[in-house]
Amino acid sequence: MNETLHLMQSHRSDRSYSSEPVSDVLLDEIIRAAQCGPSSMNGQQTSLVVVRDAARRARIAELAGNQPWVAQAPVFVVIVMDFYKSSLGVARAGQQQIIHESVEGYTAGAIDAGITLGNLMTAARSCGLGVVPIGGVRRNPQALIDLLELPPCTFPLAGLCVGYVAQAAPQKPRLAMASYRHDEHYRRDGLPEMIGDYDAVMVKYWQEIGRADGVSWSANLANFFTKVYFPEVKTVAAKQGFLNDK
Amino acid sequence: MNETLHLMQSHRSDRSYSSEPVSDVLLDEIIRAAQCGPSSMNGQQTSLVVVRDAARRARIAELAGNQPWVAQAPVFVVIVMDFYKSSLGVARAGQQQIIHESVEGYTAGAIDAGITLGNLMTAARSCGLGVVPIGGVRRNPQALIDLLELPPCTFPLAGLCVGYVAQAAPQKPRLAMASYRHDEHYRRDGLPEMIGDYDAVMVKYWQEIGRADGVSWSANLANFFTKVYFPEVKTVAAKQGFLNDK
Repeated sequence: MNETLHLMQSHRSDRSYSSEPVSDVLLDEIIRAAQCGPSSMNGQQTSLVVVRDAARRARIAELAGNQPWVAQAPVFVVIVMDFYKSSLGVARAGQQQIIHESVEGYTAGAIDAGITLGNLMTAARSCGLGVVPIGGVRRNPQALIDLLELPPCTFPLAGLCVGYVAQAAPQKPRLAMASYRHDEHYRRDGLPEMIGDYDAVMVKYWQEIGRADGVSWSANLANFFTKVYFPEVKTVAAKQGFLNDK
Repeated sequence: MNETLHLMQSHRSDRSYSSEPVSDVLLDEIIRAAQCGPSSMNGQQTSLVVVRDAARRARIAELAGNQPWVAQAPVFVVIVMDFYKSSLGVARAGQQQIIHESVEGYTAGAIDAGITLGNLMTAARSCGLGVVPIGGVRRNPQALIDLLELPPCTFPLAGLCVGYVAQAAPQKPRLAMASYRHDEHYRRDGLPEMIGDYDAVMVKYWQEIGRADGVSWSANLANFFTKVYFPEVKTVAAKQGFLNDK
């Protein structure tokens, strides 16, 4: 197996960082690796905001629902869906952009933000850095938009802590490969059993790493997926110009 | 620079494939690399459908808007947003999932599909394979859902051609790094000039690779971003259970 595959198969989310700074030269290489990824229609509808300032990181940690690693890691990168730049391009061609108002536009923008996030993680980890993606940037999106001075037609979709790891995290198990890889068409058979098996795996995993509050996968999802845990995404996305094609 | 960074910085979309088959052992390693990526709330709301059957690939090529590389590459992977598996988990815990109905749920699912797509591309390219991501799976989503027998609470968000490259593609230039990397807060200054410069770069690029129909970035976006090019995403996503939290 090659080094890149090995690196990707060993992915884990690190939440313990040393104070060792990340050089700007290294960060530029990582960001360049992300920027070289593809985008829908070559719209390049993603931008990054790199936050190093400790006070700003502390504020983002709070907005994300009190996540201390956001304040601890020396670099926090906000992945912004950005149809503002493309709107300038369309205006330059004498027309008006509407794609961002549609479900299709929002979908393409969110997928592209995900490609960017995935690429940032792989690139950073290849340089010996640890990462943890932060969906909590969607908890208080308006406050983050104000803090980062984001223009219309943009939305902060995800964040990423980047830094040298103080205490390495364990790797979390996944559902069975057969529930993930389907051949030729989707197979529902066997999914309940695979979920039952995984529930047991996760209970054992939490015990092994000393997390007494750890529950099965199903019980954990029942805590989160039965409510809209970040309800402001809908209203703030609309205010930024998205999903308005009624 | 390490090998992984070099690989990612050399990303290009390949649309010319040889008939050399991709071994299933290799494909499993690539898929395993993608599965090890993180997901929002560890919901693992992504599944892959691997299509090797030539007739199915030909049909998908047609559904995607006649993209011949989908039929030509020996492997086509559909990246499916999958809140069906998580709904089974929530039901197992005696409750009912609602997160997929919300903008937040859809957003998290689309970002996670993007992480998966990014990881698949990097993993495949690390094995000497070429790739091209296909947003065109969103052109006729209902027909694809039927073909792949996708259950409720799922949606085919993207596709990926995977195969050995017959004729290598050139690397497409990107907007200036200063338009992509913003420090501490978003900078609007300079964006119009950077877009003007990039327009010229793209016109030159198309000329250099012999594409007489190539236009500037702005003119290209004016062709696509002024209409909803895949309008069925909205209606079919709603039918699958998404974005229904009115």
